[in-house]
Amino acid sequence: MVIVMTAGASLKSISGVIKKINELGLKPHVSKGKERTIIGVIGRLTVEPEYFEGLPEVEKVILILSPFKLASREIKQENTVIRINGKGEVGGNHITIMAGPCAVESQEQILETALALKELGVKIIRGGAYKPRTSPYAFQGLEDKGLEYLEEVKRVTGLAVVTEVLSVEDVEKVSRVADILQVGARNMQNYPLLKALGKTDRPVLLKRGMMSTLEELLMSAEYILSNGNPRVILCERGIRTFEKYTRNTFDISAIPMLKKLSHLPVIADPSHGTGVRDLIIPVSKAALVAGADGLIVEVHPDPLSALSDGFQSLDLKDFARMMEELKSVSSILGRKL
Amino acid sequence: MVIVMTAGASLKSISGVIKKINELGLKPHVSKGKERTIIGVIGRLTVEPEYFEGLPEVEKVILILSPFKLASREIKQENTVIRINGKGEVGGNHITIMAGPCAVESQEQILETALALKELGVKIIRGGAYKPRTSPYAFQGLEDKGLEYLEEVKRVTGLAVVTEVLSVEDVEKVSRVADILQVGARNMQNYPLLKALGKTDRPVLLKRGMMSTLEELLMSAEYILSNGNPRVILCERGIRTFEKYTRNTFDISAIPMLKKLSHLPVIADPSHGTGVRDLIIPVSKAALVAGADGLIVEVHPDPLSALSDGFQSLDLKDFARMMEELKSVSSILGRKL
Amino acid sequence: MVIVMTAGASLKSISGVIKKINELGLKPHVSKGKERTIIGVIGRLTVEPEYFEGLPEVEKVILILSPFKLASREIKQENTVIRINGKGEVGGNHITIMAGPCAVESQEQILETALALKELGVKIIRGGAYKPRTSPYAFQGLEDKGLEYLEEVKRVTGLAVVTEVLSVEDVEKVSRVADILQVGARNMQNYPLLKALGKTDRPVLLKRGMMSTLEELLMSAEYILSNGNPRVILCERGIRTFEKYTRNTFDISAIPMLKKLSHLPVIADPSHGTGVRDLIIPVSKAALVAGADGLIVEVHPDPLSALSDGFQSLDLKDFARMMEELKSVSSILGRKL
Amino acid sequence: MVIVMTAGASLKSISGVIKKINELGLKPHVSKGKERTIIGVIGRLTVEPEYFEGLPEVEKVILILSPFKLASREIKQENTVIRINGKGEVGGNHITIMAGPCAVESQEQILETALALKELGVKIIRGGAYKPRTSPYAFQGLEDKGLEYLEEVKRVTGLAVVTEVLSVEDVEKVSRVADILQVGARNMQNYPLLKALGKTDRPVLLKRGMMSTLEELLMSAEYILSNGNPRVILCERGIRTFEKYTRNTFDISAIPMLKKLSHLPVIADPSHGTGVRDLIIPVSKAALVAGADGLIVEVHPDPLSALSDGFQSLDLKDFARMMEELKSVSSILGRKL
Repeated sequence: MVIVMTAGASLKSISGVIKKINELGLKPHVSKGKERTIIGVIGRLTVEPEYFEGLPEVEKVILILSPFKLASREIKQENTVIRINGKGEVGGNHITIMAGPCAVESQEQILETALALKELGVKIIRGGAYKPRTSPYAFQGLEDKGLEYLEEVKRVTGLAVVTEVLSVEDVEKVSRVADILQVGARNMQNYPLLKALGKTDRPVLLKRGMMSTLEELLMSAEYILSNGNPRVILCERGIRTFEKYTRNTFDISAIPMLKKLSHLPVIADPSHGTGVRDLIIPVSKAALVAGADGLIVEVHPDPLSALSDGFQSLDLKDFARMMEELKSVSSILGRKL
Repeated sequence: MVIVMTAGASLKSISGVIKKINELGLKPHVSKGKERTIIGVIGRLTVEPEYFEGLPEVEKVILILSPFKLASREIKQENTVIRINGKGEVGGNHITIMAGPCAVESQEQILETALALKELGVKIIRGGAYKPRTSPYAFQGLEDKGLEYLEEVKRVTGLAVVTEVLSVEDVEKVSRVADILQVGARNMQNYPLLKALGKTDRPVLLKRGMMSTLEELLMSAEYILSNGNPRVILCERGIRTFEKYTRNTFDISAIPMLKKLSHLPVIADPSHGTGVRDLIIPVSKAALVAGADGLIVEVHPDPLSALSDGFQSLDLKDFARMMEELKSVSSILGRKL
Repeated sequence: MVIVMTAGASLKSISGVIKKINELGLKPHVSKGKERTIIGVIGRLTVEPEYFEGLPEVEKVILILSPFKLASREIKQENTVIRINGKGEVGGNHITIMAGPCAVESQEQILETALALKELGVKIIRGGAYKPRTSPYAFQGLEDKGLEYLEEVKRVTGLAVVTEVLSVEDVEKVSRVADILQVGARNMQNYPLLKALGKTDRPVLLKRGMMSTLEELLMSAEYILSNGNPRVILCERGIRTFEKYTRNTFDISAIPMLKKLSHLPVIADPSHGTGVRDLIIPVSKAALVAGADGLIVEVHPDPLSALSDGFQSLDLKDFARMMEELKSVSSILGRKL
Repeated sequence: MVIVMTAGASLKSISGVIKKINELGLKPHVSKGKERTIIGVIGRLTVEPEYFEGLPEVEKVILILSPFKLASREIKQENTVIRINGKGEVGGNHITIMAGPCAVESQEQILETALALKELGVKIIRGGAYKPRTSPYAFQGLEDKGLEYLEEVKRVTGLAVVTEVLSVEDVEKVSRVADILQVGARNMQNYPLLKALGKTDRPVLLKRGMMSTLEELLMSAEYILSNGNPRVILCERGIRTFEKYTRNTFDISAIPMLKKLSHLPVIADPSHGTGVRDLIIPVSKAALVAGADGLIVEVHPDPLSALSDGFQSLDLKDFARMMEELKSVSSILGRKL
């Protein structure tokens, strides 16, 4: 951390800062420039950095170290590879495709989709039982019933299941079915939920908040990791920008940047990332060549009758075409689909 | 709702849309322009509007009605006034000042602050027992102990208490102490929490998410209202923008706009809204002349030793000065402080 | 400036940075922490700071000093007061109101408006002759004809004129009429234009770009100041955010923050700042209590027939009411309208 | 266009709107819903749509047609292919690589780079003679001298040249050297410049503004096209977001979306689009698989001594590696590099 004093800061204020630094067991390192005095702080902070911003004649406080540790590639250099209940792994040489409808809508819908996806080589099915919706009047998911259907799909097809958990009190229940617990964009900073997930033994798929920075995403991963669960999969799903033709702006740079900053696997969600059916295939291919370890895609046997997200779901025919194109892309990356 | 077909959409696609509209019990109203056919939809939707975006040759779907109902001034024209356990009201002719530290740090700190604030005419004290923090390594609040201290403050001083509740399983516990339950910016779209708060009888202070629109804020209020609790106080607390000199950009227009759109009371949080101590007084005065029903301000007896948010807290002397300036502003507004 | 090296940076890389610093005539100040080596750079930079980001094993470069000098309050502590051709001044104890239509539409329109505004105490009329428009098919202003009408208004009414100049080749022509040259939001970073304005002797009203930071605004002011023209008026006119109910988000904090950072006068444009007629009066009052030195407001004798910006223009009756309300606000500020 | 009246709008207000529509030679189409009356407007507008927002009891105005015409794929369905002075074409089956330093720094630097790039198969060199810089104290380019050096490079190497033009009075001068005239992000809405470029016969490379929407980009293209120059190349170069690890957020979806909306060629600038050297290759490959017609990349023989943008420039060795990787990507796209 570096503390910058205001121009002409008094000796008393400078000493005040130094005293605080010493009190916290840290080491100050003073550097007097012509226009500003700056004070380096050596050692790991136990208070928040803004603490120093309140001291007299402090102009600003600048962080030097990234605030995440366990998620950082500095701490762990090799890639984390996460095994999914014998259904392959995420983060290794294989590219992982998770696919399925936005929401579980009925027993038939989810089972039919699962069988078709299995046919196309998919090993992990997605599908929401509990849906976070902007409007209280919108379809909120089949809830417990939806979870039951997912359990049956798992039993019948042998596919692994990734599904969202919305609150602490549902963690145990959802964990009995899900092979991967998903944290949605709106819950990326729901800290009680993150702490609870840190205490399970299930892999967690952590989606980037729709207006969050990569640092905030990694800090949320840090909540899970520091509570004891090392199995976190990061997911780029688009951020809110001023662009109106797309629902979100898919941040393609996030993929190589997260791979550089962290050892955790990174997947892409091109369905929410664009919100436009025609863009899903090109953006999926782009995500893979940029280094993504996998994709999570909305696929619906009949998007025109989907209860949610139909407009950004692929039908099975388009999904089959996408798988073909992804194979061609994977070949030049030296990875397997 | 208005559905716009693509240029040259086929009759088959147009009929398809009309059929869907009829199936949903709504009435279509077709208008053929030179370049586009547009189809008005008359009646309240029971599916989400994006549903129609997935149909063939639909270019876009445009909402006409605002999606919130109970929160809307169209439904209820007079201002909602919320009584706070005999400690005055929010939304009436009086301007309500809620003040106190970011976090409850110790029995002495919160009691001392409460007594000093009472002296200055404050009737509602703020103070967090459970703190949502970006970093798992930062101070997370005194938690249950903090709640106990707030209970004691209440007993001793007779002040009302506003404090944040972070998750569904804490609602009951926090409700036993709090006169107003606060939903923080990060939880504005935590729907299970909003539903649970809709089932209590406590007033809810709902903060705007740091990157949320006013429509989203009102939709979150709608979750609480539609679950049975009519006592919601809206709070503008600044949004994230590209500006770096301030922590957030306080959206001054939000105040008169929310008052226009909704009957609910609106207060301002100039502490988080700016994140800069020197800006708190000017922005507070601006909020009042723009129509705010009150303020929630961070005040700490010794900001330099605060465990959180010291940099944006007023000390008691500055707060006393602020109260004087606000009185002068209130006088020209014809409202009482 | 502070240069942060990557974790475990080699001695060779550290020496490389130090060598570059010395070559540039600056002084390095090395501080070895446990996890990072950081190097302070003492002296004013002659290269851009990103220069150092390209050197091997440099993690990041952090600026300590603000990059603007002549615009800064550190350099000049007393407020700059700008006299407008004997029509009063901007930045002194008086609050300056500039008012008028978005565009000059006809000789009658601008003259009629000018006479009515004069009656209401306005000393400076606004009105665009050259209009920057998103669409090439929209009304682009009366151009040279509009300028002629403004000249006549000036002669007949004695009002001062503020009007926009769009490009270098128009500067001389517009300067012959305008008492204040306006730089629109879209041109805030049109550097050839700023340089040309730095060489005139006319006051310049510099509008904040719709997605610019305050630092960028001050850097653009610096272009004008450093080219020889000390008479710059800063203008907050709202920034683009995700909020949809308003055209722009008026950044109320920008006003006290600019007054703190700079000695230049600061005015507010509540018409573009909100884009909603009903919000103009509350936001204008808020701007004044937050410290603005004046306002620039769109007023049209018949907004319903305005060729541009009618939706955000006040009519004369509303403007008269606004002036009354502003007088009441000014009284508690100890300033004159 | 659709005009939505407020709830309970009076017959008088509704008639007022209809009258205005008729006066403008357009056709109204009224649709009375239960809660709102909406009025469709049939025909091309000659006033701006906000015009109607100012009328009494109008709640909002919604555009149906996209505001660009000549740039639209509806008007011209086949791809526009632009020939570059016998140096190949942009927008056809070949992928076009433009490469070179941010700025022309010296005769040696630009000539050496040009020869090396030619060796690697590049046909178009980039290099700025006039540089738009945030700070008036930063290197502003070699200006006329830089242009001379580019002319020489052209003569000696036979490469085509793309370089930025900053203002109307430079257009003629720069056109004598440049094969492609570049409009920088900050000038995307400099309308006098766009109009002037519409009157030249040179291809124009139009960069997206750093906070502009695709619609705004296409409207700026429309300025050039409607002034007579059909040869516009669109360029995605990243937009400003809240993410801090990258300088800009490269909008990968912009590429397939622009190709869908418009017939104009689309290229990508991964150097400004990321601002991070390590991300240039992955993002370049992603841009190609997403459908880009080419790239414009910053390459410097010695990035460590570059006067600007060194931190985001590739050296020749990395560029050669990039060309190899792009060839592999092109192969699966069926396009030639």
